[in-house]
Amino acid sequence: MERTCLAIILAAGESTRMKSAMSKVLHPVAGRPMIAHVVDALASASIADVALVVGRDAEAVSTAASTGSVNVSSFLQKERLGTAHAVLAAREAIEKGYDDVLVVFGDTPLITAAPLTAARERLAEGNDVVVIGFETADPTTGYGRLIVEDGELLAIREHKDASEEERRITYCNGGLMAISGRKALDLLGRIGNANVKGEYYLTDLVEIVRSLGGRAIAVKAPEEELTGCNTRAELAYIERLWQQRRRHELMLAGVSMVAPETVFLAWDTELAQDVLVEPNVVFGPGVRVESGAVIHAFSHVEGAHVRAGATVGPFARLRPGADLGPKSKVGNFCEVKKAEIGAGAKVNHLTYIGDAFVGAGSNIGAGTITCNYDGVNKHVTRIGENTFIGSNSSLVAPVSIGSGALVASGSVITEDVPADAVAFGRARQEIKPGRAPILRERYEAEKAARKKINASE
Amino acid sequence: MERTCLAIILAAGESTRMKSAMSKVLHPVAGRPMIAHVVDALASASIADVALVVGRDAEAVSTAASTGSVNVSSFLQKERLGTAHAVLAAREAIEKGYDDVLVVFGDTPLITAAPLTAARERLAEGNDVVVIGFETADPTTGYGRLIVEDGELLAIREHKDASEEERRITYCNGGLMAISGRKALDLLGRIGNANVKGEYYLTDLVEIVRSLGGRAIAVKAPEEELTGCNTRAELAYIERLWQQRRRHELMLAGVSMVAPETVFLAWDTELAQDVLVEPNVVFGPGVRVESGAVIHAFSHVEGAHVRAGATVGPFARLRPGADLGPKSKVGNFCEVKKAEIGAGAKVNHLTYIGDAFVGAGSNIGAGTITCNYDGVNKHVTRIGENTFIGSNSSLVAPVSIGSGALVASGSVITEDVPADAVAFGRARQEIKPGRAPILRERYEAEKAARKKINASE
Amino acid sequence: MERTCLAIILAAGESTRMKSAMSKVLHPVAGRPMIAHVVDALASASIADVALVVGRDAEAVSTAASTGSVNVSSFLQKERLGTAHAVLAAREAIEKGYDDVLVVFGDTPLITAAPLTAARERLAEGNDVVVIGFETADPTTGYGRLIVEDGELLAIREHKDASEEERRITYCNGGLMAISGRKALDLLGRIGNANVKGEYYLTDLVEIVRSLGGRAIAVKAPEEELTGCNTRAELAYIERLWQQRRRHELMLAGVSMVAPETVFLAWDTELAQDVLVEPNVVFGPGVRVESGAVIHAFSHVEGAHVRAGATVGPFARLRPGADLGPKSKVGNFCEVKKAEIGAGAKVNHLTYIGDAFVGAGSNIGAGTITCNYDGVNKHVTRIGENTFIGSNSSLVAPVSIGSGALVASGSVITEDVPADAVAFGRARQEIKPGRAPILRERYEAEKAARKKINASE
Repeated sequence: MERTCLAIILAAGESTRMKSAMSKVLHPVAGRPMIAHVVDALASASIADVALVVGRDAEAVSTAASTGSVNVSSFLQKERLGTAHAVLAAREAIEKGYDDVLVVFGDTPLITAAPLTAARERLAEGNDVVVIGFETADPTTGYGRLIVEDGELLAIREHKDASEEERRITYCNGGLMAISGRKALDLLGRIGNANVKGEYYLTDLVEIVRSLGGRAIAVKAPEEELTGCNTRAELAYIERLWQQRRRHELMLAGVSMVAPETVFLAWDTELAQDVLVEPNVVFGPGVRVESGAVIHAFSHVEGAHVRAGATVGPFARLRPGADLGPKSKVGNFCEVKKAEIGAGAKVNHLTYIGDAFVGAGSNIGAGTITCNYDGVNKHVTRIGENTFIGSNSSLVAPVSIGSGALVASGSVITEDVPADAVAFGRARQEIKPGRAPILRERYEAEKAARKKINASE
Repeated sequence: MERTCLAIILAAGESTRMKSAMSKVLHPVAGRPMIAHVVDALASASIADVALVVGRDAEAVSTAASTGSVNVSSFLQKERLGTAHAVLAAREAIEKGYDDVLVVFGDTPLITAAPLTAARERLAEGNDVVVIGFETADPTTGYGRLIVEDGELLAIREHKDASEEERRITYCNGGLMAISGRKALDLLGRIGNANVKGEYYLTDLVEIVRSLGGRAIAVKAPEEELTGCNTRAELAYIERLWQQRRRHELMLAGVSMVAPETVFLAWDTELAQDVLVEPNVVFGPGVRVESGAVIHAFSHVEGAHVRAGATVGPFARLRPGADLGPKSKVGNFCEVKKAEIGAGAKVNHLTYIGDAFVGAGSNIGAGTITCNYDGVNKHVTRIGENTFIGSNSSLVAPVSIGSGALVASGSVITEDVPADAVAFGRARQEIKPGRAPILRERYEAEKAARKKINASE
Repeated sequence: MERTCLAIILAAGESTRMKSAMSKVLHPVAGRPMIAHVVDALASASIADVALVVGRDAEAVSTAASTGSVNVSSFLQKERLGTAHAVLAAREAIEKGYDDVLVVFGDTPLITAAPLTAARERLAEGNDVVVIGFETADPTTGYGRLIVEDGELLAIREHKDASEEERRITYCNGGLMAISGRKALDLLGRIGNANVKGEYYLTDLVEIVRSLGGRAIAVKAPEEELTGCNTRAELAYIERLWQQRRRHELMLAGVSMVAPETVFLAWDTELAQDVLVEPNVVFGPGVRVESGAVIHAFSHVEGAHVRAGATVGPFARLRPGADLGPKSKVGNFCEVKKAEIGAGAKVNHLTYIGDAFVGAGSNIGAGTITCNYDGVNKHVTRIGENTFIGSNSSLVAPVSIGSGALVASGSVITEDVPADAVAFGRARQEIKPGRAPILRERYEAEKAARKKINASE
């Protein structure tokens, strides 16, 4: 589209019903603030300039909105005097002169480019105000009804003011609106506050523009995209809709999910074709999984790269910086952080690998720990190719294990192990024959004594 | 309300369709027996006296119903001759004389105070029998229909006896009933058993009281509250409704749940405002989580106190007696039982802390185990403030680690460590250069030999 | 039924919309390939002979269909020229002569015996073609409508060819069909391809048989049973329906599931009456759980036998060959593989037991690892009865621990321990008083130095 556009995001609400220590637009959906979803929807509609109207948590909201995909200028709404008043907080931006002014909300993160673009196209056709509406099965919960006649939007009738007949209308106001940029300031300036609450309502624009001989219309968006957030229950509902949408896209693209309703994706999760995701998997931000990889049940994956054919879990946790090589395996009760696991290497059980390199084909025994922290600094463990690290070993970083080396089970390794060497770091076994019954007798006596004390207290 | 009230809980059923080794009213909902939910609903409606009619598992049912919130007397119903017969098992209690007699069921644990109080208020207005009913979208499954005319309840018509027109009625009998306490025994005594099954039906009261010139009415309760339990599938459905109700309350109170349908609460779970609960968290009884705490995905928390700003999981298990200090952290594959974790202390990975005290600011390395059990007795581990316990250490209780002390990785600590000391308990590392290929060769030879044996067998 | 029957399974599709490296009929539902479900439905309808029409992944599909419950012959469809063409790929089988020929699809794994048997019974009554249809609430998605008059099926009208009135019909074609075996080849041979796509459609049979004076009818199956699979989203939907059906059956049989929607069963999971399954449990194939056992939340169980009264989890993983004795316990962050756990034995925390025998009444301490692998061979660990294995011990197999023996915490055990002996394998503890602050100072200096280097780079 050749026309210029300013999008104004209203994000100054108090969020009272969220009962939260932060503004609702900062609450995350799919692992990123709600407001960032709105900004990226604008960017995907090729809108470059955004005026952000902020109130509570102004600075944090501005930061969260700065996703890098559009130019964002913030405007503080000092008082809360209605939606039109909020829009005019961005007067300075509107004055720069745009073909289109688009008003959207910071708390409708499911909006996509399609209805925004549709609304702008209708402005380009000569309409002055385009309201984005939706069809709903149940309008009785109080939405404003769109009164449309011969393609023109005559009015937005609030539920409380609507006649019985009007209440049967299922086409409702979604709140988002596109306004002719050339007329916007004039139109907005005409909105009054002669109503019960003494507020300035953006919806008045419809009747104002018509009284001036202009033309208002409505365009439809799916109800889902206009879902707003006022409580944590609604936040959870939005998260659910987002997840359903994204899971469905991924499945149609060739990702298998045994139980999609139990897979939680982040906004940027990348899963390739022929990835299999078992039930109960949580993806944090920054994950990329290549084709043929399997994420087994009960896995928690964040900031990780899982290469082709690798398998993760069940019960695995990949933390930021985990990079799993092709056909490698990270199994149950294992945590991998900031570490490369080489092709075909196996980290199968009860292991912590942090700040480490594990060479291709190495086998890390159950219960192995890379001791990467001394309480102050983090240190690196380097494990070569085709090594065998015996179970329950402690590798005290900084330390290197050469390729082909073998570490005996239960060893504490504090010095580098050369390639092909065998390293031990464990005590010799001693046996006291017949001692167990004697010890048990002593323990039982202690128990009896303790009971006696307890009883006499 | 000034009026006295006896609530009679019918809990004598055989529970055949549950296919269970115990009575259905003992089956848990939200971690406590169904019957206890009913008792507490009565208590919250300010009803003090309860007559419990028991049959199967009489003693266990009585115990489960004794939640301490009301006075419970138990009455054994020896034969199963219908609901009215069951009520009369509590004749002795009714004879004590109450203004109101309320009949409820042990297997409808979702009932709340509101409809119970409403029914009693209608008794106070002079009605003799008040039936609690519900509106349903689908009455065809066989509910008794409430035949109401000019505000009076004329009859309860069983589905099988109903005319086509009556079957279209969507107002159904919920089974619960309030009866004038002064008339109850007389009315109940008039119920006959001249029916196919030869049972005494409580629903006959409606026609009996009317025939005597008295007045019966109905009050409505939400269908959900009257959901009864006959099978394990219905038990699961009740659990689901309970969970939905409680999650919703908590979210409206300011608790964030990313995926509420995956969070399982116990009847007494306390989550403060601005607690964040990630997907897949199970709460057992006795949990209190303070504001700002985060319960990460895949956590299992029971009998624990999580203080402000602490974080739990992912993959953490808190067992009874876990007390996590402010901003402390218990991470993946960690279990904490009967232990205090000091403010800001970290138990990050693969650790078992049981019967212990961990001082503020201490860091417990991956794989640390408090060895609290000698097979007979449990012993206590005391860890001071700002200690550093190296990874894979075993702390053999009873033992103390002084504040500021440092335990080397892989150590077995059996004696107390003074403050600011460094403790080692591990073998010195030995290296056999070039030995790994030799060992591997030997292992391969063993493998080959084994194959040969297997092949020749 | 006395009549002979050949079932023809059409499984030659390209599965393009699955976007998968394998044919859709190989994708698993409840842990086994879709096609195997279809085959077993035929077997449960007492059908012995199956002709499998294959195309893509022909060999793998044939293998997957060979569940052993029926005789399967495979026929390759070289070109894709419509359903009738596919059926005729099995001409050789049809020619053998059967009373009934039943055509089913490889991608409708929810089909059960009932509608198949019903269709055959209608053939036995003298009908020539029996179409299996279903009632749907929403036929607008494009199903073919069944035009039935006086009990006869007049035609199957494709959505695009249907009149407005016909589109209101909610009785739709499920695709499955029973054909008189004596007439099948003649009828199939008459199907032409004079249509837009130039394909041979099985649905033409209805009009053909009628034109020859024969009789076609329709029988109803539940819509669910006819659900087909074209995308991974539909695959997930089928999985969901399968799971719901099986969970419901199990609950009605006396299994408790706190949150059935979070329990994932395999096709052969056996759970006895009075088993309790907590939320978030995944069963792989080959599991049998006996009465009174509890599977706690977050457990992953595959190829395991859990005997009466045993408890598993939370956070436990049982792998193939795990055999848990009566009242034994496998707790959090424990993995058991190819191992017998004796009656009443306890494996409570952070443990790996593989290739092992644990005697009755033994207690395995937290963090114990059976070191069963030397990088080449797997070795066995034998633990007697009533032993106590101290925490963080490593049992290096092959090794035996005699009954009643006691292994000290943190020991590495490489040699057999006699019965009633106490075994140690750990270093003596050393203490360096006052050394911790010195070490910390050194670490802090290192940190400062590192920062300086980073800053100057």
